[in-house]
Amino acid sequence: MDMLWNGWGDPARATPLPDTVSGLLRDLLGVAPRGAAALPLEEIGVPTSPLDATVRRALEGAVGDRPDRVRTDAETRLRHTRGKSTPDLLRMRTGDTADTPAAVVLPDDHDQVLAVLAACVRHRLALVPFGGGTSVVGGLAPEGGSATAGFVALDLRHMNRLLDLDEVSRTATLQPGLRAPEAEALLAERGYTLGHFPQSYEWATIGGFAATRSSGQASAGYGRFDEMVLGLTLATPEGTLDTGRAPRSAAGPDLRQLVLGSEGAFGVITSVTVRVRPLPRVRRYEGWRFASFDAGAAALRRLAQDGPRPTVLRLSDETETLIGLAQPDAIGASLRRQDAGCLAVVGFEGTEEDTAHRREGAAAVLGACGGTFAGEEPGERWAHGRYSAPYLRDSLLDAGALAETLETATYWSRVPALYTAVRDALTGTLTEAGTPPLVMCHISHVYENGASLYFTVVSAQGEDAVAHWTRAKHAANEAILAAGGTITHHHGVGTDHRDWYVREAGALGVRALDAVKRSLDPAGVLSPGVLLPGNGPRTSAHPHP
Amino acid sequence: MDMLWNGWGDPARATPLPDTVSGLLRDLLGVAPRGAAALPLEEIGVPTSPLDATVRRALEGAVGDRPDRVRTDAETRLRHTRGKSTPDLLRMRTGDTADTPAAVVLPDDHDQVLAVLAACVRHRLALVPFGGGTSVVGGLAPEGGSATAGFVALDLRHMNRLLDLDEVSRTATLQPGLRAPEAEALLAERGYTLGHFPQSYEWATIGGFAATRSSGQASAGYGRFDEMVLGLTLATPEGTLDTGRAPRSAAGPDLRQLVLGSEGAFGVITSVTVRVRPLPRVRRYEGWRFASFDAGAAALRRLAQDGPRPTVLRLSDETETLIGLAQPDAIGASLRRQDAGCLAVVGFEGTEEDTAHRREGAAAVLGACGGTFAGEEPGERWAHGRYSAPYLRDSLLDAGALAETLETATYWSRVPALYTAVRDALTGTLTEAGTPPLVMCHISHVYENGASLYFTVVSAQGEDAVAHWTRAKHAANEAILAAGGTITHHHGVGTDHRDWYVREAGALGVRALDAVKRSLDPAGVLSPGVLLPGNGPRTSAHPHP
Repeated sequence: MDMLWNGWGDPARATPLPDTVSGLLRDLLGVAPRGAAALPLEEIGVPTSPLDATVRRALEGAVGDRPDRVRTDAETRLRHTRGKSTPDLLRMRTGDTADTPAAVVLPDDHDQVLAVLAACVRHRLALVPFGGGTSVVGGLAPEGGSATAGFVALDLRHMNRLLDLDEVSRTATLQPGLRAPEAEALLAERGYTLGHFPQSYEWATIGGFAATRSSGQASAGYGRFDEMVLGLTLATPEGTLDTGRAPRSAAGPDLRQLVLGSEGAFGVITSVTVRVRPLPRVRRYEGWRFASFDAGAAALRRLAQDGPRPTVLRLSDETETLIGLAQPDAIGASLRRQDAGCLAVVGFEGTEEDTAHRREGAAAVLGACGGTFAGEEPGERWAHGRYSAPYLRDSLLDAGALAETLETATYWSRVPALYTAVRDALTGTLTEAGTPPLVMCHISHVYENGASLYFTVVSAQGEDAVAHWTRAKHAANEAILAAGGTITHHHGVGTDHRDWYVREAGALGVRALDAVKRSLDPAGVLSPGVLLPGNGPRTSAHPHP
Repeated sequence: MDMLWNGWGDPARATPLPDTVSGLLRDLLGVAPRGAAALPLEEIGVPTSPLDATVRRALEGAVGDRPDRVRTDAETRLRHTRGKSTPDLLRMRTGDTADTPAAVVLPDDHDQVLAVLAACVRHRLALVPFGGGTSVVGGLAPEGGSATAGFVALDLRHMNRLLDLDEVSRTATLQPGLRAPEAEALLAERGYTLGHFPQSYEWATIGGFAATRSSGQASAGYGRFDEMVLGLTLATPEGTLDTGRAPRSAAGPDLRQLVLGSEGAFGVITSVTVRVRPLPRVRRYEGWRFASFDAGAAALRRLAQDGPRPTVLRLSDETETLIGLAQPDAIGASLRRQDAGCLAVVGFEGTEEDTAHRREGAAAVLGACGGTFAGEEPGERWAHGRYSAPYLRDSLLDAGALAETLETATYWSRVPALYTAVRDALTGTLTEAGTPPLVMCHISHVYENGASLYFTVVSAQGEDAVAHWTRAKHAANEAILAAGGTITHHHGVGTDHRDWYVREAGALGVRALDAVKRSLDPAGVLSPGVLLPGNGPRTSAHPHP
């Protein structure tokens, strides 16, 4: 099934706003119903594809002479336009088709990907790999690609097989177009799990997880996606890069770590070898309450540093707890509670014995840190609603509100200052613009040495909603860099974060990565402007300078 | 204290061979006493330094106008000649000074390193960073550097401070010239440990650990060194690269992983931020016996995959167990035992409660896998002798034997085939050459998905000991690549492994890394021929092509 073209997920699962929330939006944030409804698909004027006949034939040849694998119809192209950030959805609702690809190409295998890349180089056509289409950082909207010939969206949905499962080594080799639930289903048949459950889980793909260094809600137990990856195959315009001969090695810089996070700028990931684990026998999620965000964060830190380590560990700040966003199914239900404090969700997955032991140890630590056990209900409610928030966002947008998230990470000692700086930047900017926001935050990924901060912002949309949010987002980005955070913990760089990423990586870091890009993609056809500054395909090739 | 110039470590700790071993060498391997003793230092003819007066002044200027920080005397240069591989020691014993640096420069800080690099670029002089001098892969012997002007060994011993300890985040920032015991002492004063204990521990440095992706004997518990690193500062001819704003991030490829393992080819590491942990309250090591290497490996795999994870986990094969090399202090003592089987050393470090829990769980797993508890004595003996093997090698060389080690890693399913392939290659090559060897092996680093294999080879030296070993080593390298292993698990690439590393990384991998090198070191002054093929400084600069 395809995703809702101008919103999130399965249209049948649309989540209307509870009355408490509608009231809150109106009374607290001054949200007014929008004047115009979102345009229906058939009313959006998609310009004719600029793809000429020669190029089309070259692309068809690359995918086995199958015309049905090179699509230029309006609906297919529209469904591959940008990703799922709030600005993306807002633009789509108003019929902005500026970033629509010239064609959508659907290869079957690695060799076809190489052939498509060769055709793009030959015809100086930009190409963007397209997995689940869930980017929220502009990773699917290249720059400099659409001005003339446009660009190709390379949809990897037909590369969706489990290529190998090594039960002795506990590794699986997966094709990039597998959606996470498909991958989990294939592994579950054999008794294994990947354990990667980001909010985009139901729609995102294996290749996308690798390309963007995704991190899932059970990262405390299963690790980040980049920590699960043991090997990658990358199709580049210059040939194939194969990585990962051993789980760990001292043979030079880790080339896997150069591919992870490359976001389509260096090549197309055509297979990913990951660590797998036995399916857990037990899954148990529970709630703990803390008097303050600081107290809760200190408790999470103790578990992250000294253990025992839960599988899921997250903590909402006072505002998020009050609104009930920690449990999307119950949003608004906590509003009347004055003693909400900060809710933590703590989850354990594994064998009966191991989860019992860890749960007992963690309870002792959480209690010693001032936590109060809140039963299993908040945990189960969180688990039930864990993929629902993006549906809620659609309803908020429908109601005329602005709703968006952003995230960062830093070392533990800097967490309080980073939290304050980002919250202040968002609140200040939006208040000054006349739309005071509700800013909520949670910690959802913990490490021995630091943690992520995930912010959710809701306000009125202002005059021009995209420009309005962009101002707030830029202020947050500046605050993140000033407070020593990273510009993104798990959403990736795309085009939206690029200018801040460049500052974070530093001039030499960017120069080194740019050198890598030029060595693998001398013609500059791959995702121009994504991750690194770029101006689209060069008019003449500079083969590996 | 400086290391023994033509052998290992502290001369006062020289370890004479037990009679059983001398007998074994003679009777089993046909080792004959060497004709000539090693040359004393004062009899080695070190050619005059080719450094001219202009260049010397430039280098002195770079290190604060201190002539004592630019050394060209014979002894200092000799003490910075090559590393500590067996061929290195054999060459030094015969007075081969081909790889002696033109000068040894000793900077105080990052800015002086930048200034030294600038002087080297200006005068087209190669430079090799020098930490503990313990490379066993030719990492300190650049190619193309010594033919004309020679090269500079940049000795980092004066950069030996603990720059920062963040007890909340549990991170420490260390200068690269700190030897591991110095770093541990500085951290222990505050109650922390790094937990990195490779065999070179007593002499190797923090910068060297990072540059070579070192892995220590307690890697099962504390991780590899590359897993401990959170941030690095790299001084390059083009400026400074700073990495590590957050413990984990989705902001692009991980630049830290490009610096780790770069072995001086991209720049000089001038600070390393690492994760630290509280000093363990308890350290307990014990022995377990298995009927076969396969049975023991299966037990190690179960612990690595399902836990509980010991802090130290190693398993000697039948031959190593029989010889007693698992416990260097007891070498030869096991020889009369016919039931030696395979000895595993299993260690636990941490709090009283945690180690007790893990020990109990591990014992159940090891027992279920056919292991027999062998008491604490073999563990304690291993712990006592854990840094002694290189001393033993000196004595073996003195006795006229050849003794060397090599290592690799692979996925669990490939471990048996890799083990057989490398053992057969070593045994076959040396037997064919008329010096049948004793080949021993252990697993000393385990991961969820694979393990390392560490081989020790002892034989007679043959006619030309260096050429003799080189043949055997090359055969082992070919066997490793053919069996799907990595060319090095923790020794690094240097110049010795480079040609096999290039095949492992693949043409595109090397092209990408070469592009990085050219972007950071366009003049090619840094460690030419180390890691990547190179011919020394280019006669004209190509600033970031």
